[in-house]
Amino acid sequence: MAKDNNFNIQTIGTATIPSPIHLDQMTGDSIYKFIEEKDRILSDVTLQGFNTCLQNNEAPVCLEKAGPRERIFFRPENTTAAIVTCGGLCPGINNVIRSLVMALHYFYGIKRIIGIPFGYEGLSPTSNHSLKELTPDMVNDIHEFGGTMLGSSRGAQPVSEMVDMLENNKIDLLFAIGGDGTLKGANAIGDEIEKRQLPISVIGIPKTIDNDIDLIDKSFGFETAFDTAAPIIRDAHNEATGAYNGVSIVKLMGRDSGFIAASAAIAMPVVNFVLVPEMAFDLYGPNGFFEALKKRLELKNHAVIVVAEGAGQHLFEKEKQITDASGNVQHRDIGLLLKDKIKEYFDSQSIKTTIKYIDPSYIIRSAPANASDSVFCNRLAYHAVHGAMAGKTKFVVGMVNNQFVHLPISKVVHQRKKIDLAGEFWFAALQSTGQPFSMVQS
Amino acid sequence: MAKDNNFNIQTIGTATIPSPIHLDQMTGDSIYKFIEEKDRILSDVTLQGFNTCLQNNEAPVCLEKAGPRERIFFRPENTTAAIVTCGGLCPGINNVIRSLVMALHYFYGIKRIIGIPFGYEGLSPTSNHSLKELTPDMVNDIHEFGGTMLGSSRGAQPVSEMVDMLENNKIDLLFAIGGDGTLKGANAIGDEIEKRQLPISVIGIPKTIDNDIDLIDKSFGFETAFDTAAPIIRDAHNEATGAYNGVSIVKLMGRDSGFIAASAAIAMPVVNFVLVPEMAFDLYGPNGFFEALKKRLELKNHAVIVVAEGAGQHLFEKEKQITDASGNVQHRDIGLLLKDKIKEYFDSQSIKTTIKYIDPSYIIRSAPANASDSVFCNRLAYHAVHGAMAGKTKFVVGMVNNQFVHLPISKVVHQRKKIDLAGEFWFAALQSTGQPFSMVQS
Amino acid sequence: MAKDNNFNIQTIGTATIPSPIHLDQMTGDSIYKFIEEKDRILSDVTLQGFNTCLQNNEAPVCLEKAGPRERIFFRPENTTAAIVTCGGLCPGINNVIRSLVMALHYFYGIKRIIGIPFGYEGLSPTSNHSLKELTPDMVNDIHEFGGTMLGSSRGAQPVSEMVDMLENNKIDLLFAIGGDGTLKGANAIGDEIEKRQLPISVIGIPKTIDNDIDLIDKSFGFETAFDTAAPIIRDAHNEATGAYNGVSIVKLMGRDSGFIAASAAIAMPVVNFVLVPEMAFDLYGPNGFFEALKKRLELKNHAVIVVAEGAGQHLFEKEKQITDASGNVQHRDIGLLLKDKIKEYFDSQSIKTTIKYIDPSYIIRSAPANASDSVFCNRLAYHAVHGAMAGKTKFVVGMVNNQFVHLPISKVVHQRKKIDLAGEFWFAALQSTGQPFSMVQS
Amino acid sequence: MAKDNNFNIQTIGTATIPSPIHLDQMTGDSIYKFIEEKDRILSDVTLQGFNTCLQNNEAPVCLEKAGPRERIFFRPENTTAAIVTCGGLCPGINNVIRSLVMALHYFYGIKRIIGIPFGYEGLSPTSNHSLKELTPDMVNDIHEFGGTMLGSSRGAQPVSEMVDMLENNKIDLLFAIGGDGTLKGANAIGDEIEKRQLPISVIGIPKTIDNDIDLIDKSFGFETAFDTAAPIIRDAHNEATGAYNGVSIVKLMGRDSGFIAASAAIAMPVVNFVLVPEMAFDLYGPNGFFEALKKRLELKNHAVIVVAEGAGQHLFEKEKQITDASGNVQHRDIGLLLKDKIKEYFDSQSIKTTIKYIDPSYIIRSAPANASDSVFCNRLAYHAVHGAMAGKTKFVVGMVNNQFVHLPISKVVHQRKKIDLAGEFWFAALQSTGQPFSMVQS
Repeated sequence: MAKDNNFNIQTIGTATIPSPIHLDQMTGDSIYKFIEEKDRILSDVTLQGFNTCLQNNEAPVCLEKAGPRERIFFRPENTTAAIVTCGGLCPGINNVIRSLVMALHYFYGIKRIIGIPFGYEGLSPTSNHSLKELTPDMVNDIHEFGGTMLGSSRGAQPVSEMVDMLENNKIDLLFAIGGDGTLKGANAIGDEIEKRQLPISVIGIPKTIDNDIDLIDKSFGFETAFDTAAPIIRDAHNEATGAYNGVSIVKLMGRDSGFIAASAAIAMPVVNFVLVPEMAFDLYGPNGFFEALKKRLELKNHAVIVVAEGAGQHLFEKEKQITDASGNVQHRDIGLLLKDKIKEYFDSQSIKTTIKYIDPSYIIRSAPANASDSVFCNRLAYHAVHGAMAGKTKFVVGMVNNQFVHLPISKVVHQRKKIDLAGEFWFAALQSTGQPFSMVQS
Repeated sequence: MAKDNNFNIQTIGTATIPSPIHLDQMTGDSIYKFIEEKDRILSDVTLQGFNTCLQNNEAPVCLEKAGPRERIFFRPENTTAAIVTCGGLCPGINNVIRSLVMALHYFYGIKRIIGIPFGYEGLSPTSNHSLKELTPDMVNDIHEFGGTMLGSSRGAQPVSEMVDMLENNKIDLLFAIGGDGTLKGANAIGDEIEKRQLPISVIGIPKTIDNDIDLIDKSFGFETAFDTAAPIIRDAHNEATGAYNGVSIVKLMGRDSGFIAASAAIAMPVVNFVLVPEMAFDLYGPNGFFEALKKRLELKNHAVIVVAEGAGQHLFEKEKQITDASGNVQHRDIGLLLKDKIKEYFDSQSIKTTIKYIDPSYIIRSAPANASDSVFCNRLAYHAVHGAMAGKTKFVVGMVNNQFVHLPISKVVHQRKKIDLAGEFWFAALQSTGQPFSMVQS
Repeated sequence: MAKDNNFNIQTIGTATIPSPIHLDQMTGDSIYKFIEEKDRILSDVTLQGFNTCLQNNEAPVCLEKAGPRERIFFRPENTTAAIVTCGGLCPGINNVIRSLVMALHYFYGIKRIIGIPFGYEGLSPTSNHSLKELTPDMVNDIHEFGGTMLGSSRGAQPVSEMVDMLENNKIDLLFAIGGDGTLKGANAIGDEIEKRQLPISVIGIPKTIDNDIDLIDKSFGFETAFDTAAPIIRDAHNEATGAYNGVSIVKLMGRDSGFIAASAAIAMPVVNFVLVPEMAFDLYGPNGFFEALKKRLELKNHAVIVVAEGAGQHLFEKEKQITDASGNVQHRDIGLLLKDKIKEYFDSQSIKTTIKYIDPSYIIRSAPANASDSVFCNRLAYHAVHGAMAGKTKFVVGMVNNQFVHLPISKVVHQRKKIDLAGEFWFAALQSTGQPFSMVQS
Repeated sequence: MAKDNNFNIQTIGTATIPSPIHLDQMTGDSIYKFIEEKDRILSDVTLQGFNTCLQNNEAPVCLEKAGPRERIFFRPENTTAAIVTCGGLCPGINNVIRSLVMALHYFYGIKRIIGIPFGYEGLSPTSNHSLKELTPDMVNDIHEFGGTMLGSSRGAQPVSEMVDMLENNKIDLLFAIGGDGTLKGANAIGDEIEKRQLPISVIGIPKTIDNDIDLIDKSFGFETAFDTAAPIIRDAHNEATGAYNGVSIVKLMGRDSGFIAASAAIAMPVVNFVLVPEMAFDLYGPNGFFEALKKRLELKNHAVIVVAEGAGQHLFEKEKQITDASGNVQHRDIGLLLKDKIKEYFDSQSIKTTIKYIDPSYIIRSAPANASDSVFCNRLAYHAVHGAMAGKTKFVVGMVNNQFVHLPISKVVHQRKKIDLAGEFWFAALQSTGQPFSMVQS
């Protein structure tokens, strides 16, 4: 957790309008209660963290609980909401859109909901994409489909133009569904709104298939990602055992963080090696990957390797980096490099191998959400709407310690979440694969 | 959380043997560390809980962290482990068996692992089932299959006979995979072992598809359960829309707790009503279920109802209760009752309906684990083995606040976990279905 | 094949309008050609059949080939088509609807296509269902969903009223998607149209999940049915092996014909017994089913039984038969009978069994079509449109000897197609299950 | 059909031993009958074909019906069978292996069944792979898995060495599961056996995921292939609609024949273009592919393209061809070429596109068989065993006009089966995609 412990959420103005949701504040009556400002969730769940606070006489870092508030800021009959989806596909986007629309329409009675087409491009006056009004009927079945019904795009647009656009279209709430870059963009939009003193809320819903948004337990689509990868790996194992010294390489998403690769490897214990961006490793030498792979082939005559797209980037010659329209560093293809180098290595030792390289990235990104993710998307969307209607801004909804909370956007884009190589999760990956602990760069 | 705040775990004896796992206690070196007794997890993550402790000058309730210990109790080369699976099927049992065997064999070098056939029956000298020795080869592919490779049975056997059996077969570790009844049985076995002063560890791995084991975040198989139910509900919706005033009733597992039904309903937002055991409801009257259903049919001419098997038991005439071999109360079939009563009600109002009743229980119970559950099963099993080897006994492994912990068996069988009707999860179910908040018993 | 060998198709009038489809009659240019009346398919593919024709100096029975004709009867710009779906759900109905709409709209330029809601009920003036105009946009995604977007109903309506309705709505083509009863209804509508000398074509698209329409190779949805059943049976096997003397009974569709049950049994060779309506069998006695089951349990301690819903009806006491709204005889539940009687039988012999009964019928009926069925549905629909536009009437499209043909409705509703117990397919089922050939009624 | 109309099958010797299968030759008793030599199936099912025979006074081309014979050649108790699987993976290989073993063991009582490891390599004395004896227990669950439990390899071994190996291991029956190259190899083995006058039968089971074996209706694995491709294409459509002018290219198997690509396109009607090897096409010019694609993008702003791996090979610069170990011409990657050239084309016209390229080949090849293919594999294997036991050799089992028949290997390897561009199937693909008929090379 960063040093700056202020996790309070900004508001557009005072929430004075009674919520149209019929809840109460009574305890013990089996009915959900409005959330109050004092409802907060500890960030650190260890006894050690508790004791440190005690010793230092410090208040613990804690986060605002998400949920419906008794008083809201936006008068529903006059309110217009907009939804924009940015960046690469991720399972569950349509589930989020659907539940935003349903919650805005049915819980709060908001009748004008605008779908921004093709990401931030749709907020630019220079694009020709036309806005579409969203109704419950239009979104009723979209949760069955992967992708995003609104379309997406990568990259930024001039902030000032986008805020002009919001003003011109009388948009009061902007829900931005996207990853690191999108959230930074949303924050910049929020800053510009603040500067212009407009009563417009900006709400982020973190979307990163890589699960690399900081501070939150998980992001939507991530579970579906490794759930979709699992049978592909199971069958990649068939390719490996189908040939003498068969080697299957499956490349999965994970630019900076190997959560999908490691989760898929633990889920499907036919995986013998999992290579992630967090782990520097050598190809050659006694502790290198190839030596470990050789031992595996000698023992069993086949091997399955799962590699995150961002792993092993140190193995490429240093040249100038390429970035995509979203500003993400474009990685060289570690899967192809491994395929070539493994063949070269074993050929040089006169060991025959048959190597198959499988890259299911788009198949995974475009899949519909599984049931866990659907539940998660719906709850996220409901909370986003409740927080937005209360007049909060520049926040994301997320789950922390199994509780839905609000987090300032600025906090979650500070850095990427990564696998802790000294943590239980990575240890589980090592236990599951049986790959040597020592396969680290000397 | 119960009043008794002592969550310490019993041990068989002092752990003095160095662990064969090559970890260390150094910080900052990207290598997992042995877990120490001081590593504990808070049970309550709210700020309010923290402040209450502060005000009352009380230590917070906290739980022993699971993971490998630097010193173990059992000398691997002399140790025999046994695995028993009890009660109804649940996705993931084979994953747990596989990972127990792999962890015992590869992490600790235990060479004798015994599979107890057909549940506690297999521990009874009067059954003719023969024990089977388990090897990594034998369990290598079982994670692909639902069910349990060991077979199962319901119900208890004389504790004394079962402990005789453990002694006679020189079993040092007994891993019992099962639900409430199984865990109570495991605890009773542990008590008898204690009485006889035997150095045998008993470890529970909570298996309840209903997710109703108290105190823990979730039990394995639960996510797969509603993941498997989701497409069935999606298609039940086709049955509902396929006829004028079509009504589909899907009965899901959930004897005392409606987690599967509610999760499936949130995952698949075509569900219009979810009925759970925690919620008393009337069929008739202005706030009754039938009035709400009638409004729905008038509006849309179809409806999807998900009902947990234990819901609405108050609607049956009071007669003597029937219990199954595990001591669980056998529920009367609420799905069939609803089907009959709905038809009767609408017929009496001359409203034509077409009602389809779907009971996918065995289809769900016998399915293989999805990827999330596979990951969860593997980590649970690894932690069970680490805790067992450290000489701990009469504990279960579970996840609390996203951390793997040890919990005394006695604590988790105290009561069933239920949906909090005043909590966020149930509110999400109400928001997703749109069913009236007021549909509660007058 | 029935004695009446006249398989010519009736027409409404002379087809004089040039087809808007740009094909030709040239051979050898890699472009599909219009189908001519002389293009016919043999019904019997055996050499014996050929020789019999030769010896008797008879023309072989042959069927009109389906496909686009050079001249059509209906002038597209003035033509209105209607689609009705009747009877129980079956995978692929939406695929057929979609392809009918697309073919009518894009191939022939028909702009008015009417969806009849809720089966023949929607053709009755006394129902309040309103017709819906169908456009390509409306049907664009429906192939992803099981069920029927038009709704369905069982049972007949007065033929005269339905023809009034067609006249009043200026409908020129009626596509009726349904089973035996629906097709008989369509034929009656066709007869009434003929009597009134109206230029309205009636086209049947055989829909029977049971695959029991006579003369045709297969009906759509059938392959999806046993494809959907297969994993359910695989997991039912887990239930069987999960208990000592575990017996799983899976009831599948098949009122008069056991094609689904037998296909599912061959597809999933864990099935030990398959019971179909075509096969009379005894429960008791040395050649009875229970004796065979007992031998199986003694050998392996578990068994999987697949039973078609119409099997074993002779085992029920003779009482007055119940028929449903479509006129189908309602079967008593053979699955429940088997469950009860098996328990009784083995209890009486003091053999403990655990019996699980699984009825996935609605789950299978409401599933979306698999890829083979999707291809089949699309081709069927295209052929239905081509035949209809050519002015043919009272015919169904079907596949015979892998070729799409037209068949008079009257021919295919003459009797149900059944498994030939002396044929290769049933022999495959016997070979796959290993059940005794002799398990037939004495 | 080739000119040589002799489709008789060679035999090793006279079948004199009574079959152990308890069938009879009685008609009308609901029991399957032994197949006789006179049971034959017409190759041509058109009336035109029939009439041509009549006019020319010619016997029609017909094929030997497969099935158990009353007299067999091999004495079961002395017989050894061997199974070898060659070439690339294809869904269903394990189903075939399983059913061969079950049929040999249970139907005929053959106790020695040898699995040849890693394809024809395993028949070479220079490889170190060791033979494995196969039992029913060993193969019991393999149908659940894709791949081949025996392993495979590409390429030939010296025929003489392989026949030595058969002799040395006293193998009487060799079942060779493989494609064109494998079958040619099997035939060469059969020729060498004939030369040495050995009583060894060689039986081919055609395995080609591309469905390109001549004369037969379909090959196993093909239906699973496009069934597995279908959801990938469905989701590729999400990638296409997820971006402005999004273009998804899915490359599917199909070296010489586009059956998988075209079937998948018909199954999943979001496909706008399907490109197959049988169809020469231009990229540029008014009838070129790019002009058609441009029109599509102008209309809908997204497009989905399915391309068979062997399509468009004429677009590559002529260089020396590369062949793989099986002698198949290695194709240059048409998917990558399209991706690059499409981008180049639209960039040059200042039209922004987002292109995603998906190659799921290994994912499809290694998948388990779906239910239709499982049924097909089992029946094929049973027929292979029956034919083999009768002493037939150098034949394949296949389905022709829905009947299982024997075909001389030499006949089916004569040429590859291809899509008939003037046939109904390709016309269905054109109708489904809506791609211009005229998109052919000028």
